[in-house]
Amino acid sequence: MTTEASDKKYNSNVVFIGEKPFMNYVTGVVMNFTTQNSNEVAIKARGKFISRAVDVAEVSSKRFLDNTVEVVDVKIGSDDFTNKEGRQVRVSFIEITLKKK
Amino acid sequence: MTTEASDKKYNSNVVFIGEKPFMNYVTGVVMNFTTQNSNEVAIKARGKFISRAVDVAEVSSKRFLDNTVEVVDVKIGSDDFTNKEGRQVRVSFIEITLKKK
Repeated sequence: MTTEASDKKYNSNVVFIGEKPFMNYVTGVVMNFTTQNSNEVAIKARGKFISRAVDVAEVSSKRFLDNTVEVVDVKIGSDDFTNKEGRQVRVSFIEITLKKK
Repeated sequence: MTTEASDKKYNSNVVFIGEKPFMNYVTGVVMNFTTQNSNEVAIKARGKFISRAVDVAEVSSKRFLDNTVEVVDVKIGSDDFTNKEGRQVRVSFIEITLKKK
């Protein structure tokens, strides 16, 4: 129970980018800083959603939270794993950290 | 003439990601470090090609140049401009710097 609660708290500062409408993610990031009063929000994405993660970070920080939030860190990397067909697959990821100024 | 030559020299350390076959870009990055003996190579992309830029950086540095080259910097940003229809458009970009260890 305690673990679940703290996991939830932790996850509230992370926005995972997928195939939902673009503005859902922007709203997610903005609300995290405003309603939930977070000091720092991480935007994470894998594969083809990486471009979208950059768009979400830019629109959130430049259009909606201009002068209050900035990109402080960008990390890229990749995970190797074996897919269902037994082939080695590499999937890239990005992690963009936005922080209150 | 001189400007053109030095431009060419400068551009040789930058790989712009577009819609050519994926391995063209990986080869471009790898050759830059090997044949041209560059110390640092920048991978740049805009819009939907950003995901691809991360893939190129990961495959080049982890599969082909493992232990010799690493990602030292990742920058993201966006450019605002007015398109042909007179609308304000924002395009995100990424700039990934790989460097010899």
